[in-house]
Amino acid sequence: MYKYSYLLNFTKEVFNKMGCSDRDSEIIAEIFLAAELRGHSSHGMIRIKDYYELWKAGRINVSPNVRIVYETPSTAVVDGDNAVGMIAAGFSMKTAIDKAEKAGTGWVATRNSNHFGIAGYYAMMALKHDMIGICLTNANPLVAPTFSISRMMGTNPIAVAIPALNQPPFVADFATTPIARGKLAVAEKKGEKVPFGYVQDKTGKPSDDPAILKSGGSMLTLGGDRLHGSHKGYCLSALVDIFSAVPGGANFGPFVPPSVAYLPVLDKKVGEGTGHFFGAMRIDAFQPAKEFKTKMDEWIETFRTSTPAEGEEKVLIPGDPEREAEERILRDGIDIVPAIKDDLLLIARNLSIEFA
Amino acid sequence: MYKYSYLLNFTKEVFNKMGCSDRDSEIIAEIFLAAELRGHSSHGMIRIKDYYELWKAGRINVSPNVRIVYETPSTAVVDGDNAVGMIAAGFSMKTAIDKAEKAGTGWVATRNSNHFGIAGYYAMMALKHDMIGICLTNANPLVAPTFSISRMMGTNPIAVAIPALNQPPFVADFATTPIARGKLAVAEKKGEKVPFGYVQDKTGKPSDDPAILKSGGSMLTLGGDRLHGSHKGYCLSALVDIFSAVPGGANFGPFVPPSVAYLPVLDKKVGEGTGHFFGAMRIDAFQPAKEFKTKMDEWIETFRTSTPAEGEEKVLIPGDPEREAEERILRDGIDIVPAIKDDLLLIARNLSIEFA
Repeated sequence: MYKYSYLLNFTKEVFNKMGCSDRDSEIIAEIFLAAELRGHSSHGMIRIKDYYELWKAGRINVSPNVRIVYETPSTAVVDGDNAVGMIAAGFSMKTAIDKAEKAGTGWVATRNSNHFGIAGYYAMMALKHDMIGICLTNANPLVAPTFSISRMMGTNPIAVAIPALNQPPFVADFATTPIARGKLAVAEKKGEKVPFGYVQDKTGKPSDDPAILKSGGSMLTLGGDRLHGSHKGYCLSALVDIFSAVPGGANFGPFVPPSVAYLPVLDKKVGEGTGHFFGAMRIDAFQPAKEFKTKMDEWIETFRTSTPAEGEEKVLIPGDPEREAEERILRDGIDIVPAIKDDLLLIARNLSIEFA
Repeated sequence: MYKYSYLLNFTKEVFNKMGCSDRDSEIIAEIFLAAELRGHSSHGMIRIKDYYELWKAGRINVSPNVRIVYETPSTAVVDGDNAVGMIAAGFSMKTAIDKAEKAGTGWVATRNSNHFGIAGYYAMMALKHDMIGICLTNANPLVAPTFSISRMMGTNPIAVAIPALNQPPFVADFATTPIARGKLAVAEKKGEKVPFGYVQDKTGKPSDDPAILKSGGSMLTLGGDRLHGSHKGYCLSALVDIFSAVPGGANFGPFVPPSVAYLPVLDKKVGEGTGHFFGAMRIDAFQPAKEFKTKMDEWIETFRTSTPAEGEEKVLIPGDPEREAEERILRDGIDIVPAIKDDLLLIARNLSIEFA
């Protein structure tokens, strides 16, 4: 078990050694560790190696000039200048919040960015401003549309954070596939199989092998198959891809630059880098903030007290599992599985950082 | 087979006889028939009986004063005055478009409304203004959150329409359950079973009986079970419920007034009527409209030409099946199954309208 602060400092040092500024390295480390704390290790320390490989390949800009390139009072397009995703995304969400402060709502499309960690982190930035926060991103093309075997989309998450009064906020943060890509990577590192319904092989046959993506397989959309609504998962994933790429001018679908080494970098580009989309909505653009938040409390209390099915303990509110994980992990520490520890040891050695 | 114009006139006459104005009856009929044309008969003629029953029970206002009750330059709250849903929703989406015209984006939360037909109709209203259209609504509480047997949410659809240049627009319009509630009703009328993964019985056991909702059963969210991501479907359905109810002050979750006779009308209210949420975003708030639409064409062409799985014919773009249905149905006519025809005959007789 590692202490939060130990891994935070280690991560900061990794990005610092790669050439990121102190301030940027701090932001990046905070967001990597936010994934660990919220129990989404699939987006935490396991991803540091991806960035290290990108950096070694000269595919990431450690001194970026992240900036607004197009704007109206309630919208903007941000160019991430090929920064580490957390830097482009943090700037973009802050811009959305600033816009909403003045115009009621703010909407920012970001191009030329990279993998940004957990989407929920950015959505939650809106909460302390009494705003609803929204964050979407496209990602490595590994997911096939319904009826297809082509890897056209990422796991394309949706995060929405909604403030409440006395209750903790409602925070939904989920991939538009049955499982996040990083969770497949974790299963693979642990040598486990995955349930059918997550992936298919390169001909479209169901598979339980989490490593199938390395041999031409693809992930399935939420719903799994057509009969169970995979076309709805496809709609969702496509919407996230379009919002993330089209308004801001990023790459879409199969052209999103891979953040994993086993996917080839394509010659063809249809935009700049990875794309994200951010929204911030003042709750008092609809009704007095306190009334809104009181009603959210009532919503949360109503759903939390719905009747569990036989054998189930309780019904959860989106954000509950992550908050419980955070308490537990801050107390007990962060578990790093051996294969990931090996990756981190190697990175530490190569960058002359201490890690044990 | 019925001709489009025959059912359009019949539907207009039904609402006219119930006391709706000529103009309102026309709008209502057009939207009912839009569902039939787009191949979503689950939201078409089958629902006329629900409105007829609501009207007989004095639960619908045929002379409503639909109006804006709160607004900022880019947002508004609309009170539907217990109108037929199509009237409240049409006014609200028009308001969102007007707001976007001036402010770049427009967001409208609607309360005190009723079932409004297909969500896609309203989202598509934005297209001719070179805007993205968004429409959400809550509905009859029939869907259980993950781990629960309580009927807390509706099938809560999401519709998003995005304009393209030479390609037809991208139009996603889907319930956040594996299947729309109306499709269960259609299966029941036809005497068919449904696949496992759609519904559970009152203890939480899987079921294949489309009528199980009438004996305390509930619908499952997209994903079906926890292992296959039902918690993500729950997040989606919850988000639609919150956006539809909380900003505008409508009822949420289990308190949404039922539009079907077998659900009781609760004494407790947490807001006014059914709620919807509408969004309109000018595409030129992000980049010149023509560039946006050219890129959407490229997106659509890329996805349409992805490789079909073995045994599949082609990969579809959201909106394709509905557009193909519309061509076919305008040519061949609209099929009304016997049980629904019987309902319509009864309504016609009671309102002294001709129908055969």
